[in-house]
Amino acid sequence: MSVAVTPVGTTYVPLLEAELLRWVGSGDSLLELACLDALFPPGKLLRPLLCVESAKAVGGTADQVLAFAAGIECLHVASLIHDDIIDQDPVRRGRASTAEQYGLAEALVAGDGLSMAGIAALLSSGADERVLHAARVTIEALRRMCHGLMRETEIRGDLNCGVSTVLNVMQAKTAALTGAACQAGAILAGASPQQHQALRRYGEQLGMAFQIRDDLLPYTAEDHITGKTATSDVANLQPTLPALLAYETADEADRNRLTTVFRGGTDPVAAHRDTFAVLTRTGALTKAARMAASCAERARAELTGLPDSTQLARLVTSAADRRR
Amino acid sequence: MSVAVTPVGTTYVPLLEAELLRWVGSGDSLLELACLDALFPPGKLLRPLLCVESAKAVGGTADQVLAFAAGIECLHVASLIHDDIIDQDPVRRGRASTAEQYGLAEALVAGDGLSMAGIAALLSSGADERVLHAARVTIEALRRMCHGLMRETEIRGDLNCGVSTVLNVMQAKTAALTGAACQAGAILAGASPQQHQALRRYGEQLGMAFQIRDDLLPYTAEDHITGKTATSDVANLQPTLPALLAYETADEADRNRLTTVFRGGTDPVAAHRDTFAVLTRTGALTKAARMAASCAERARAELTGLPDSTQLARLVTSAADRRR
Repeated sequence: MSVAVTPVGTTYVPLLEAELLRWVGSGDSLLELACLDALFPPGKLLRPLLCVESAKAVGGTADQVLAFAAGIECLHVASLIHDDIIDQDPVRRGRASTAEQYGLAEALVAGDGLSMAGIAALLSSGADERVLHAARVTIEALRRMCHGLMRETEIRGDLNCGVSTVLNVMQAKTAALTGAACQAGAILAGASPQQHQALRRYGEQLGMAFQIRDDLLPYTAEDHITGKTATSDVANLQPTLPALLAYETADEADRNRLTTVFRGGTDPVAAHRDTFAVLTRTGALTKAARMAASCAERARAELTGLPDSTQLARLVTSAADRRR
Repeated sequence: MSVAVTPVGTTYVPLLEAELLRWVGSGDSLLELACLDALFPPGKLLRPLLCVESAKAVGGTADQVLAFAAGIECLHVASLIHDDIIDQDPVRRGRASTAEQYGLAEALVAGDGLSMAGIAALLSSGADERVLHAARVTIEALRRMCHGLMRETEIRGDLNCGVSTVLNVMQAKTAALTGAACQAGAILAGASPQQHQALRRYGEQLGMAFQIRDDLLPYTAEDHITGKTATSDVANLQPTLPALLAYETADEADRNRLTTVFRGGTDPVAAHRDTFAVLTRTGALTKAARMAASCAERARAELTGLPDSTQLARLVTSAADRRR
């Protein structure tokens, strides 16, 4: 399934890094230091690259959206900093999470500060009415992200919350912002409503594919590749898509195994091993992988009719085939 | 010193409350519920009233800025929600803090969600270029607020950090946003640069006066009036302006008493009583009150030359004479 491709957007990575530095500062204060440590070395830069490539796909230039794209990355990383406080995750991107390295209070403030730096970047450039439109779309996505995060705290440990609930949480937590990144890039580049709405749907489907693969990573990748702790979801009793798909079809013995794990108190390593076994037996991993592939297919379908969508098509492939 | 005045802006309070509801929602989700509980019943609404009255002082109308003003209140309350996580304060405005009532993770997400609702409100109305200008000014103030909060975590327990450091923290944490609320209101109403810059300075000085009085409240007001816990600053080892003013001039015995308190481990009630005694003996409370009065005076001086600043002058009086 894996396709050998040069990473998309390699040209823009150094430009995006320079923008990030411009908005976050050079590390003269504890706040700047904590933000820089969270931002660098950067992750996949998926959201800003989606923003840049969406602008280009409708005939715009990277220059028109670089600051905005960097702002979206700041807002995304700010949400990760807060996420790691909530999940008490000590590791992010293969290094200590901000909360682990700087402390809870400091991580909380760093997330807030990085979020505001991101918004300053969003509002910084381009024609007034386009910037406002693109910023409104992005802020709305961030509001949905918060709704998703809150919903997630409510379903913790609840294996009966249903597959559709978990899909809604993914939509709110991940797909809303990937969709907004694409739509905003297109708006800033002067796209027609049809174009920027198609790109929003493209980004949302890509985000769903990405997130479903993300839920599968603890069962398909090594920790040193993802930079995360494979047992984190299970340790946090967070019902993921594969777990719920398995629960739906599992026999009584396997249901009981999952129930025990999600009641908490089990050793995380044993819990992860037991869950993995049930997920394999029930075919849940395969089913989830197929759902990711369908989302990727729907994302590609949205690209028909755009002037130049080669790079966006490649981004779908890398998001849906991710190994980290 | 206390002057009997009808509270300023009484006319606008119901309008602001309606705007807050419009931006935060009706409580259909846990996120909305937590935000509503933090917002209602509202506090003094100082920042949104500053925004409205600043618009009116330069010839604008309340209508032009109501949504923006409500957005500023959301952003302010969001920062209080996060503040109470950091300080582990169980009480805010006489009721359980969000963290106490909903839990840490939920309060963190509620603060983020309310912050994004606030930004959506900022970006919602008026002429594009004015909205962008006013929003940029406000976001810059929020970035400074985060810097102030981070600096505050650094000086915890440090009686040698110096009076000027604590004044800088107040400037960043409080005065930047009160200044921005005034400047943004004026910008939205079409003020000249001279006018909106004067109003920014007015708001900053008013904010300083307000914050200095706030630091004095644990020593001048009853808990049931402030709705806070009088021992909170001492329990958190946060050096305040009166404590540092006292430390500067205290004799060796009193310095040792303060040092003991700020080393931590003392019973909060005893610590508060010992601090109060030293603050009274050294005249630090009087000195701090005089500093607040000077800031109030400087705020009033910025109002010269504005078409109609009666209400803004009254807001200075209530901020500088606050008993809660």
